[in-house]
Amino acid sequence: MGSFSTLTRSFCKFVNMSKSALIILAPGAEEMEFIIAADVLRRAGIKVTVAGLGDSTEPVKCSRDILIVPDTPLSKVASEKFDVVVLPGGLGGSNAMGDSSAVGELLKNQEASGGLIAAICAAPTVLAKHGIASGKSLTSYPSMKAQLVDKYSYVDDKNVVQDGNLITSRGPGTAYNFALKISEELAGKEKAQEVAKGLLLSYD
Amino acid sequence: MGSFSTLTRSFCKFVNMSKSALIILAPGAEEMEFIIAADVLRRAGIKVTVAGLGDSTEPVKCSRDILIVPDTPLSKVASEKFDVVVLPGGLGGSNAMGDSSAVGELLKNQEASGGLIAAICAAPTVLAKHGIASGKSLTSYPSMKAQLVDKYSYVDDKNVVQDGNLITSRGPGTAYNFALKISEELAGKEKAQEVAKGLLLSYD
Repeated sequence: MGSFSTLTRSFCKFVNMSKSALIILAPGAEEMEFIIAADVLRRAGIKVTVAGLGDSTEPVKCSRDILIVPDTPLSKVASEKFDVVVLPGGLGGSNAMGDSSAVGELLKNQEASGGLIAAICAAPTVLAKHGIASGKSLTSYPSMKAQLVDKYSYVDDKNVVQDGNLITSRGPGTAYNFALKISEELAGKEKAQEVAKGLLLSYD
Repeated sequence: MGSFSTLTRSFCKFVNMSKSALIILAPGAEEMEFIIAADVLRRAGIKVTVAGLGDSTEPVKCSRDILIVPDTPLSKVASEKFDVVVLPGGLGGSNAMGDSSAVGELLKNQEASGGLIAAICAAPTVLAKHGIASGKSLTSYPSMKAQLVDKYSYVDDKNVVQDGNLITSRGPGTAYNFALKISEELAGKEKAQEVAKGLLLSYD
């Protein structure tokens, strides 16, 4: 039911313990969705690790040809525990994560331990491919809906959807609210609102 | 007066000639503002060159520690002509661009030839330091206002300000509209609206 995990998160927010996020950076990732998540979570005081698929820290070529250097290969941190695992969108990146057994195993462990999983744009299809969070409410980039309606309770009319330990969102234009929602969950609403203010956004 | 340049831009929009953008990536750049500009302009069909300050293509460490690999060192492309020169914000990045004589020379040439210059967040201070666009209307990240009010007609109540060949904007939360405005100027309003729709944003 994840209630112990929820209690733990509430307690950690209360005593202000540092939280951790793993963001997977796959070739073809949508670079705006990736970087908004990483930057906003770091602004919220969350320890962010950027893990490239594969075994090296070679620069990763994103969907619009920007090259980004991951902090670590996924293989080096796959056994560590993170408070949230974040999957940015982009069709190429999502296909690569969907084809990766390492990502599948990581997500299964994250789900089993009651940790947060967050996916945006095309990345909710990664969850479907690895059999994660079946039956939950979620959203995605509109054109991905057909791949998700059978396994999930699909939400069309919200930019960010939370169902227990799953947070999903729709695309680049909703990426700030997606990252702020994750920040709220791990660092509290006040911190999320403070970060939003610094970005010149509002967050209710 | 820039009217020939404006005519040229209108003509190029009409015949759909490929436009070019130079985006400067300096250490300490705000990575969201950088990447939203690069990604959105590429979605609009504009040829984007990412130029790192200095003489190499070593990865550039941005404001929230993301490492991004530039396409080229600025020194290699400084004599080329671009339809727009884009300066992302971030305090460290803006200070580095303000201290760079190469950036100063590039901006002076861009201004003299009637090319577009676009700056967001802390980056309008780079214009002030190099004596660019003096007297024009502009905006910036709110805390930078004091450094700009003497030399410019400062605008507080708009997210994106255009005055002739100068486009300025305020911060990460206004970066999509900033990039869409540049896209509109170089690729036409219809293209900007098409790109916005793909991002799940609207652009009027």
